[in-house]
Amino acid sequence: MASLQTARNASATSSQTADKPLSAAELKLIDAYWRASNYLSVGQIYLLDNPLLREPLTRKHIKPRLLGHWGTSPGLNMLYAHLNRVIKRNDLDMIYIIGPGHGGPSLVAHAYLEGTYSEFYPNISSDIEGMQKLFKQFSFPGGIPSHVAPETPGSIHEGGELGYALSHAYGAAFDNPDLIVACVVGDGEAETGPLATGWHGNKFLNPARDGCVLPILHLNGYKIANPCFLARIPEDELRKFFEGMGYKPYFVEGSDPAAVHQQLAHVLDTAVTEIRAIWTDARANGNVRRPAWPMIVFRTPKGWTCPEEIDGKKCEGYWRAHQVPMGEMDKPEHIRILEQWMKSYRPEELFDDNGRFKPELAALAPTGRRRMSDNPHANGGLLLRDLKMPDFADYAVPVPAPGETIAESARAMGKFLRDVMKFNMEAKNFRLFSPDENNSNRWQDVLEVTDRCYMAEIYPEDDHLSPDGRVMEVLSEHQCQGWLEGYLLTGRHGFFSCYEAFIHIIDSMFNQHAKWLKVCNEIPWRRPVASLNYFLSSHVWRQDHNGFSHQDPGFIDHVVNKKADVIRVYLPADANTLLSVTDHCLRSRNYVNVVVAGKQPSPQWLTMDAAIKHCNEGLGIWEWASNDKGFEPDVVMACCGDIPTLETLAAVQLIRQHLPELKVRVINVVNLMKLQPEREHPHGLSDHDFDALFTKDKPVIFAFHGYPTLIHRLTYRRTNHANFHVRGYNEEGTTSTPFDMVVLNKLDRFHLVEDVIDRLPQLGARAAYFKQAVHERLIEHRQYIEKYGDDMPEISGWKWGTQASPRVTGRTSTEGDNL
Amino acid sequence: MASLQTARNASATSSQTADKPLSAAELKLIDAYWRASNYLSVGQIYLLDNPLLREPLTRKHIKPRLLGHWGTSPGLNMLYAHLNRVIKRNDLDMIYIIGPGHGGPSLVAHAYLEGTYSEFYPNISSDIEGMQKLFKQFSFPGGIPSHVAPETPGSIHEGGELGYALSHAYGAAFDNPDLIVACVVGDGEAETGPLATGWHGNKFLNPARDGCVLPILHLNGYKIANPCFLARIPEDELRKFFEGMGYKPYFVEGSDPAAVHQQLAHVLDTAVTEIRAIWTDARANGNVRRPAWPMIVFRTPKGWTCPEEIDGKKCEGYWRAHQVPMGEMDKPEHIRILEQWMKSYRPEELFDDNGRFKPELAALAPTGRRRMSDNPHANGGLLLRDLKMPDFADYAVPVPAPGETIAESARAMGKFLRDVMKFNMEAKNFRLFSPDENNSNRWQDVLEVTDRCYMAEIYPEDDHLSPDGRVMEVLSEHQCQGWLEGYLLTGRHGFFSCYEAFIHIIDSMFNQHAKWLKVCNEIPWRRPVASLNYFLSSHVWRQDHNGFSHQDPGFIDHVVNKKADVIRVYLPADANTLLSVTDHCLRSRNYVNVVVAGKQPSPQWLTMDAAIKHCNEGLGIWEWASNDKGFEPDVVMACCGDIPTLETLAAVQLIRQHLPELKVRVINVVNLMKLQPEREHPHGLSDHDFDALFTKDKPVIFAFHGYPTLIHRLTYRRTNHANFHVRGYNEEGTTSTPFDMVVLNKLDRFHLVEDVIDRLPQLGARAAYFKQAVHERLIEHRQYIEKYGDDMPEISGWKWGTQASPRVTGRTSTEGDNL
Repeated sequence: MASLQTARNASATSSQTADKPLSAAELKLIDAYWRASNYLSVGQIYLLDNPLLREPLTRKHIKPRLLGHWGTSPGLNMLYAHLNRVIKRNDLDMIYIIGPGHGGPSLVAHAYLEGTYSEFYPNISSDIEGMQKLFKQFSFPGGIPSHVAPETPGSIHEGGELGYALSHAYGAAFDNPDLIVACVVGDGEAETGPLATGWHGNKFLNPARDGCVLPILHLNGYKIANPCFLARIPEDELRKFFEGMGYKPYFVEGSDPAAVHQQLAHVLDTAVTEIRAIWTDARANGNVRRPAWPMIVFRTPKGWTCPEEIDGKKCEGYWRAHQVPMGEMDKPEHIRILEQWMKSYRPEELFDDNGRFKPELAALAPTGRRRMSDNPHANGGLLLRDLKMPDFADYAVPVPAPGETIAESARAMGKFLRDVMKFNMEAKNFRLFSPDENNSNRWQDVLEVTDRCYMAEIYPEDDHLSPDGRVMEVLSEHQCQGWLEGYLLTGRHGFFSCYEAFIHIIDSMFNQHAKWLKVCNEIPWRRPVASLNYFLSSHVWRQDHNGFSHQDPGFIDHVVNKKADVIRVYLPADANTLLSVTDHCLRSRNYVNVVVAGKQPSPQWLTMDAAIKHCNEGLGIWEWASNDKGFEPDVVMACCGDIPTLETLAAVQLIRQHLPELKVRVINVVNLMKLQPEREHPHGLSDHDFDALFTKDKPVIFAFHGYPTLIHRLTYRRTNHANFHVRGYNEEGTTSTPFDMVVLNKLDRFHLVEDVIDRLPQLGARAAYFKQAVHERLIEHRQYIEKYGDDMPEISGWKWGTQASPRVTGRTSTEGDNL
Repeated sequence: MASLQTARNASATSSQTADKPLSAAELKLIDAYWRASNYLSVGQIYLLDNPLLREPLTRKHIKPRLLGHWGTSPGLNMLYAHLNRVIKRNDLDMIYIIGPGHGGPSLVAHAYLEGTYSEFYPNISSDIEGMQKLFKQFSFPGGIPSHVAPETPGSIHEGGELGYALSHAYGAAFDNPDLIVACVVGDGEAETGPLATGWHGNKFLNPARDGCVLPILHLNGYKIANPCFLARIPEDELRKFFEGMGYKPYFVEGSDPAAVHQQLAHVLDTAVTEIRAIWTDARANGNVRRPAWPMIVFRTPKGWTCPEEIDGKKCEGYWRAHQVPMGEMDKPEHIRILEQWMKSYRPEELFDDNGRFKPELAALAPTGRRRMSDNPHANGGLLLRDLKMPDFADYAVPVPAPGETIAESARAMGKFLRDVMKFNMEAKNFRLFSPDENNSNRWQDVLEVTDRCYMAEIYPEDDHLSPDGRVMEVLSEHQCQGWLEGYLLTGRHGFFSCYEAFIHIIDSMFNQHAKWLKVCNEIPWRRPVASLNYFLSSHVWRQDHNGFSHQDPGFIDHVVNKKADVIRVYLPADANTLLSVTDHCLRSRNYVNVVVAGKQPSPQWLTMDAAIKHCNEGLGIWEWASNDKGFEPDVVMACCGDIPTLETLAAVQLIRQHLPELKVRVINVVNLMKLQPEREHPHGLSDHDFDALFTKDKPVIFAFHGYPTLIHRLTYRRTNHANFHVRGYNEEGTTSTPFDMVVLNKLDRFHLVEDVIDRLPQLGARAAYFKQAVHERLIEHRQYIEKYGDDMPEISGWKWGTQASPRVTGRTSTEGDNL
């Protein structure tokens, strides 16, 4: 509290110079604004009533349970007040992303001071009654979270898991040429991996086309219980660290508020001037190069302006100020300390008799949509426009008959995305994101209409690399995910292409985003944003260049743990279904769509017309592959995913040839959520429809792309579940041939045939012989690949066709005759 | 290939100076060693036969499917050869961690040249026959993966997901004072978040106590299809980047092998000298400070020494060299190019007529355990010693009767760990790891016997911070996980404490480690290492300071997807069971143990004797809570996790008071894997035992810590599964009171009571009244907390006791009489 006193003295005597841009009057006003936000921050954490301390503070005015985080708030508050100053002064379009998410009290306080809070939440009015409710609701039953959350006006950044502030900030700045994203990085957060690479966003920000991120490292020195290492290295080292990452660092440092106010005002004026100069240089002068963007190191005490000591223990400027600096409020001396602390902000100078913020102070904030708490970029749905879409049916792979065409599904998707890109080049609201896997996942056709974005040095031999590219490639799934989230939450569209196994890297980021969407669905003023779309290829079943370490289909298990109304999972079996699903994903809002499909050449099953119908249903009987027409089948062969579909059809072919009397129904699932009961997911099939498809009592052999337990988990309440036999990935890896991978996991055609025979004992002796032949075929295959290193031609060259195709034979016809 | 020619010329004329430490003879030899490893690398990718090209190369000598990665291999090979030189010259204890995991051909080649490979795999002998098998087995059915893998001698670093090389390296260097961990960071990997913070390991490495990490950034410029940004920033910026992270960077740069050999030899000599000087300064002079450790930037062409162009397209020094530089081997001209390329290494100078490596070249490598491929630190089980363990029963929380004692389970665990730490201070083989949550998760007692490790600046007011600390705290789950993995894989022990929700951050790292362990179990020479132990606290049910964004119990869902023989999941309900489980985890080997338990004060249920028995069984009937003695129960109340156990017991109490005729069986589950069938997990209960416990047909109300589907997934094959009604977390969050959280997710005592009544229609009217009273109680509670912000005293002060405790009453006895 002493330092605040110093501030007051200092502010009374300061005079305006280049280094000290604030006049004495301005300094006094901005300090008062800061005090007001500090007062409201403390009030939210502690007070239940008596918000302006008009009566002596007693225990009953204080919350019974004290929750929240004070430590970061005063620093965030000072930054906010000063950003307001430059916004007003320069008519800036700016949003504020704060990494220290538990600085909730700060952002709520400022939204309240700016009037936005009362506009969104009329019950929290701009008067003493509203202030009491503002205080009470904080981290209180029926109230608001203690962290920055969707409920917080002006935020696009969940105050949960740390690490993504800069990635979100860069994502927001892309294609927003006039936007400055002020991004506070906590020095705790700065230790995380994602944040550590987040700084490198500057290698991808084009000053001609994009806005700007102004990073502010808030070096208040402490995390929950430990110092932060960036606060404990020499300043010279820290400076090199930022220069080495391509920034121009400015240091603002101190514990005397008056001095820090002046420094900060000066540095912010400088930063804004530089940002505008960089923009002008790139736009007016056409000098599109990677500039050294300014960034700020803001070193101020943790918990600044709270009591220096409490009960004889250091508090201000120490980790003890991190959460609630003082508990045990049954102690009268603690009540006195709190009262004294809050009164040190002199609320009587800040709020009038009715609890209204004094007009001369309120006038310091920008107005309308220049307020950071009301900037439409922070409620991106307001700005969202539909993509201009080509007709996906135009990209259809011709399928004269099922299995006739061989194509790479992912490449067909890439062609469609190329034209989505082309149609929206002017709108500048669509980008693709990938950790160096855009081409590997077969989206290279997109590069016909745009480049990969790159602001580091470009060599003549580089392949489709330019500052104007709209394909964002960096070898960091965290960065891709964070950029895309920032891009979507500010009202744009995108798709993330990733190897299936490594999408787990952003499991927890997905969590945070899904939770964000779930809460947004409950907040009317949050407008819907474009869905977060994942395309997972190079999937578990085809890791030819890689192996066991690259195999994991579990992301979808992770995804289905989240609320049904925000998640969708699709596993199209061929190109035309993939195209239909892609179109759907790009048109949807407020979902997370996960699409899993392969990139290798593989047989195509459905014409576009059939694919559209199939995707509309989400799952259905493939009549052309079934022979149960009009009858109850003897067995249901279900499949979900491209490789399981291939193996199922190959198994069906064998069965229909060798056991033609068997009635087989083939069901393909493209929309995984269809399997769930309708009461659990909006897409869920009714029990009646499910029973009609999967029967009530016939064996169901289910070939699944992922871990088999997921199918059981989705279907265990279904009538026929006890007869479900699911094959999927069992964490058995290989670096061998494609077919060996399915054999090792027993998802291959031969095991599927065995399953059918095992479950239909009535088939008798001929089936037993058939089963044995099938088994021998497997052993033969194993011998073949160990010798030749490739699948037997009858496997790699297999084709669908219930009439003309070969029987399960050997490579000679005499062997085949044994069956 | 041109550059190699240059090298030959250059090497013939070079003379030994300070800057060029290699004599002409030495240069010639080391270049030959490099050529040999390059030859073997190419051979593995391409050849099926004709390993020494003794006959003209034809299509049949070449693999039908070409898999693997050449691009990084020549650089890795040169580094390996030169590290050998300094190992031999200085008798160094060194291991080699390579971030570019797909450099498998390189590490296999060197292990083969050093003889280790043939020692571990006698079929791959050191002759022409062995060489043919070496080539054929690479990424071939029945062979080895193309990445660095557990099968690779000398490796502790899976060549799967990128980002963890430096964290593993630092983990290996901790408490290994004489070990140098040479760690190659790919410039692609350097873009990942985890690697970006991995550099900061130097703030935690004590030169007096620990060994050293020598990072080598392999700046070969390209990823799969893109340039790497660190290769495209000015050298001055790159230098500052590393200086800013506290390193002393040395640059080795070029495409002329002779010149690069000399530079690299010089820089490595310098680095070794500096490392030893730093060690001496810290150890002999007691100057324990954070030094600027040397690191190397190694800028050489991608795919160095492969053809410059193939089919007119740039290959050497370009991304096209990343994987297999040349395919389409049916083209005769490609066969000629391959033959010419391989012959450019002059195999006839490297291997004798029998295919044996020439002795004068073999003599360049270190011998025995100084070989990096045979260093015991890279097969940590060889070095592993048991921990000296205190008797965990000595830390028992006294429990005179169930529910009598209130204690923080996590704190009891912390006291036990304190003494585990104390008992092993001299052995220096135990550390704790946490992302700034050690104290928050209640392990602070450990700080009585050791400090937190810190090599950045320490202030007098800092709390238990020192260079000698054995508690590793950094705000990066990636860093904690990576360090711990490195520490374990080199033969030591540890425990990782983390908030439950945020352990998802390392989902994919867990994946890689679990896969590593799974494969190690199949490799006899890989000795067992200590288990990877997680303690997850601040769990989903108690996020008082935080909220919805901090709630996710899904890590255990993720874990159970992995192989049953490597994973274990425990949810102890109180302190004594937690102690027993902790002891077990620290003694186990080659598992991943996940332990989930709370840190808040809560009732204690079992005496230590009972806890030991209960943990041995893994699950069991709590007879003291049940009233079905000797009879088949009417209902089974099962619980797993501390909060679910509390709510279940509170529900049981209500039921037993109000419906005393009902026979209730209470089952608590501490070892989650017990629920699985024995055929699926070694811990799994037999169906017979399961039926005996859970009955064949009675309702089972199961209160679970995590997502309810996990219980269904584990039990869907059990006889009585259709009667399982599971309550758990449903992705409904709150920032409210502890009880509100369980209410919102309907896991509270009142909902559990309703479940029982709903499933036993025979109970009749009295039960219906009871149910209604219970429901009213819930509404009353909601009103109370919205007013007071805290749970009703009857909830927060609830105590177990089937006799004396209050009925489900209001706060006045008259209200209670209504029931």
